Amino acid sequence: MYADLTVDVAINLQPGQRLLIIGPLMNGGVALEAATMVRRIAASAYRAGAELVEAIWGDEALQLVRFHHARKETLGEFSAWLPRALEDHAKAGHAVLSVYANDPDLLQHEPPDLVGALQQATSRAVVPFREHISRNATNWGVVAAASEAWAAKVFPEVPRDQQLSRLWDTIATLCRLDRPDPIAAWKAHLAALAARSEYVNRKRYTALRFAGPGTDLTVGLPAGHIWVSGASVTQSGIRFVANLPTEEVFTIADRNRVEGTVRATKPLSYGGTLIDDFSLRFEGGRVVDFKAARGEAVLRQLVETDAAAGRLGEVALVPHSSPIAQSGLLFYSTLFDENAASHVALGSAYKFTLTGADAMSDAEFEQAGGNRSAIHVDFMIGSGEVDVDGVLDAGLQEPLMRGGEWAREVTSCERS
Amino acid sequence: MYADLTVDVAINLQPGQRLLIIGPLMNGGVALEAATMVRRIAASAYRAGAELVEAIWGDEALQLVRFHHARKETLGEFSAWLPRALEDHAKAGHAVLSVYANDPDLLQHEPPDLVGALQQATSRAVVPFREHISRNATNWGVVAAASEAWAAKVFPEVPRDQQLSRLWDTIATLCRLDRPDPIAAWKAHLAALAARSEYVNRKRYTALRFAGPGTDLTVGLPAGHIWVSGASVTQSGIRFVANLPTEEVFTIADRNRVEGTVRATKPLSYGGTLIDDFSLRFEGGRVVDFKAARGEAVLRQLVETDAAAGRLGEVALVPHSSPIAQSGLLFYSTLFDENAASHVALGSAYKFTLTGADAMSDAEFEQAGGNRSAIHVDFMIGSGEVDVDGVLDAGLQEPLMRGGEWAREVTSCERS
Repeated sequence: MYADLTVDVAINLQPGQRLLIIGPLMNGGVALEAATMVRRIAASAYRAGAELVEAIWGDEALQLVRFHHARKETLGEFSAWLPRALEDHAKAGHAVLSVYANDPDLLQHEPPDLVGALQQATSRAVVPFREHISRNATNWGVVAAASEAWAAKVFPEVPRDQQLSRLWDTIATLCRLDRPDPIAAWKAHLAALAARSEYVNRKRYTALRFAGPGTDLTVGLPAGHIWVSGASVTQSGIRFVANLPTEEVFTIADRNRVEGTVRATKPLSYGGTLIDDFSLRFEGGRVVDFKAARGEAVLRQLVETDAAAGRLGEVALVPHSSPIAQSGLLFYSTLFDENAASHVALGSAYKFTLTGADAMSDAEFEQAGGNRSAIHVDFMIGSGEVDVDGVLDAGLQEPLMRGGEWAREVTSCERS
Repeated sequence: MYADLTVDVAINLQPGQRLLIIGPLMNGGVALEAATMVRRIAASAYRAGAELVEAIWGDEALQLVRFHHARKETLGEFSAWLPRALEDHAKAGHAVLSVYANDPDLLQHEPPDLVGALQQATSRAVVPFREHISRNATNWGVVAAASEAWAAKVFPEVPRDQQLSRLWDTIATLCRLDRPDPIAAWKAHLAALAARSEYVNRKRYTALRFAGPGTDLTVGLPAGHIWVSGASVTQSGIRFVANLPTEEVFTIADRNRVEGTVRATKPLSYGGTLIDDFSLRFEGGRVVDFKAARGEAVLRQLVETDAAAGRLGEVALVPHSSPIAQSGLLFYSTLFDENAASHVALGSAYKFTLTGADAMSDAEFEQAGGNRSAIHVDFMIGSGEVDVDGVLDAGLQEPLMRGGEWAREVTSCERS
């Protein structure tokens, strides 16, 4: 069912398309069940008419081997063929699926500057591929598979031999696979998200203001920003859902109009290390100060990846009543954690979140407020204690979220 | 030790080179121990100064999924990015290692014409990469890792839970890892093979004649043919050993001068199916007739892959006293079985087995007797019952092998 949901609802694979699966990284042992899931997805994709399904299997253990045995100067080197393979595949209009099963603590004992260097190299190498994704040039998606290391991190108090199945069960629940008709449940959920994004789109806010413990942040929204949720549409007209699960509505942040201080409400898992208990201060859109109780060196590398890595590309709203937030779990994975809380992303903006961006040059996109960077890293800033106001054109503010919940209910049929 | 032997003796990885490992295909379960071996090889390569080690992990189970769920018309499709990735890597002078752990029976229940079509597509797609390998453009190699399906095939009579370790032990023995100093043992063995290839090189035979049960075959050797064994040297001067284990001396066959009938002495494992109890008849270098008790349809696809697939590119001599022959085992893997018996290869000739071939155009290479095809498939024709004669310039024949053994001993210091 999960495989069919992935192929039919998430990727919405079209007959004759090829599917490239970026397979689950394997650490220590091998993620056998994740491999099984990849094979099920492949079967489902072939049934949907895929021309060819391929998997590129990562191996986290090889990354550790590299840290332990490679010369330090070489850690900035990246694959020569992989970025091109990804780009060519997307360019040709074929589908791409990432299966997430990473160990959030993989590189926790490695020197932060080297971890950061490796992440920077990775981010830079895949810029052309990200560009295609950012334009929804093709249907793409991210889903999760449980792995032992990840399960141990999410359920440290559960007996070791039950962690993996507990995580699988949790993923299933949060992906609504426990509903009598998961596909119908997803259609209803996507419709509700669409109604919410229509609502905020009609508001034409010029900015959002976040207020909560340690947070007083104003995030400008460019003229022509588009709120997006759940389903997206490729340039060729294929409707797809890039993330399973998804609970957010999101849009572009103005690269120059972000002011104030924000405190993260959840730790950020970044490239195999954790950044925790951190806050950032923005002036004129740019991070001018930051601190972190854990992982500050990696955070520094992150915001210094390139000139635009210290600016925001996205702002997203998620109610505290989202099933993921209500699970009370911390997943150390953006795919889940970003759907448990409102968040912002450092780095690149998605072009599909700005009207007319497709026809803009890179310079015009930046002029319009769009950020361009080698990175796009979400971190969570919402919680049950955070309020959000929408700033209207005239400078008036109105309540948008209170105590982490939408201040006003909307339904699919509402018309303002 | 196996990892170090692979990196130091086989690949002979140079500081600053990248290494691309074509990882063991995983069927049913996942080849955990093979994955461990790949990681050990990576560690050894980094210690030897590798700039980056990457693995492309195949997945036999995905192949089965394809056969069971893909539309039949699409089975001729091949990866768009993989052939280019391999070619670019080799072109850039980086090292390539294949780790063999395949299930010889993977596709035994699939329709032979579809298996053949897939193999043809695969062979054709990697022609440019093979071209680089054929010229020893870079250091490359093939080693083995045990996997459950393969072990079950080699040791059907051994209890199931001991098959895997038995195969690992056998691989270790045949790779001389049980010697007190395996690296010294390999140096001595390579020297002995070199002495043998020098001996046959000095003979300047114009043809070899194989005679045994069901076999009466003359294989022409082009003027300027070069007998090669064990160690090779890249164009840039790196000495490497392409196969571990290796027991053969081999050279180019004349694409136009092969006459008579040959009976295979071992089954041929080809693309996940077995061709067994088969013989071929050659006229003017070309296969004009063939039959097989098992897998005849796949054999037909094989020799019809392209216009040159029914001609020979290589002939190799292996004494019946080779440790692999003496093990009495059938490995269903060319890496081992070709080192247990004299053999010939259908398809492409290695350019490094003909003097001056590097400077020749493709047409000139063919003119000189060199075969060019998308395939290169070895099959075994030697045994304890097969004699080999060398045909001298004047048409005289002399005994080269008798009852599968060298008719004359040579040593490293012998001078004729």
